Amino acid sequence: MAFDPASLKYDANGLIPCIAQDHENGDVLMMAWMNAASVAQTLATGRVTYWSRSRAAFWVKGDTSGHVQHLVELRVDCDRDCLLVRVRQHGPACHTNRRSCFYTVVRDGAEVIDMEPMTGAES
Amino acid sequence: MAFDPASLKYDANGLIPCIAQDHENGDVLMMAWMNAASVAQTLATGRVTYWSRSRAAFWVKGDTSGHVQHLVELRVDCDRDCLLVRVRQHGPACHTNRRSCFYTVVRDGAEVIDMEPMTGAES
Repeated sequence: MAFDPASLKYDANGLIPCIAQDHENGDVLMMAWMNAASVAQTLATGRVTYWSRSRAAFWVKGDTSGHVQHLVELRVDCDRDCLLVRVRQHGPACHTNRRSCFYTVVRDGAEVIDMEPMTGAES
Repeated sequence: MAFDPASLKYDANGLIPCIAQDHENGDVLMMAWMNAASVAQTLATGRVTYWSRSRAAFWVKGDTSGHVQHLVELRVDCDRDCLLVRVRQHGPACHTNRRSCFYTVVRDGAEVIDMEPMTGAES
């Protein structure tokens, strides 16, 4: 069946959540939002492109930071209301320079940061 | 710092998206929603508990299906508006009996189902 971005289920704002996962080690890197146009652009360009809710504009991941996400695979969930992109992540996915946005773990009722920011040498 | 579910950022409906990941192999299993009470209940019981938007009720994963998610680790993202639970998943996470809800891949412009439903023998 041909894939049509319009066939996905978007919320009242026309958005669908998209989980980004490192295709090499399976780490969950971040979650952001797409609209139908950014889904189409992601597939057309191979560059993961979200919709920035704060800027109300396309967010081509890495255009500003250099921390590009190359699309390896796009997956749709059973309810068609969530996407999973498996990506080749260049550098950190998080704006804090950590590899993943999920660097805070809840352990014994306390929050613990267990991931350090990356240095310039890593990619 | 002590973790307080009220410190998370919920949407206008009081909900936060939660990604469930298999703690053993890293597979992303599903995405569902929590409210502050279900976050607290998940931590207190060790059983992942979502908030069902359709039923407007707690959804203790596996209570009906038997496909329980035991909490291994709960993580918070940088913006505090998304959660990641690493889980020990009993049986399929998806209501279609597939291990993950993300069983549809977009390949060369077409949708392909590349995951089979699980049989009774698997856990």
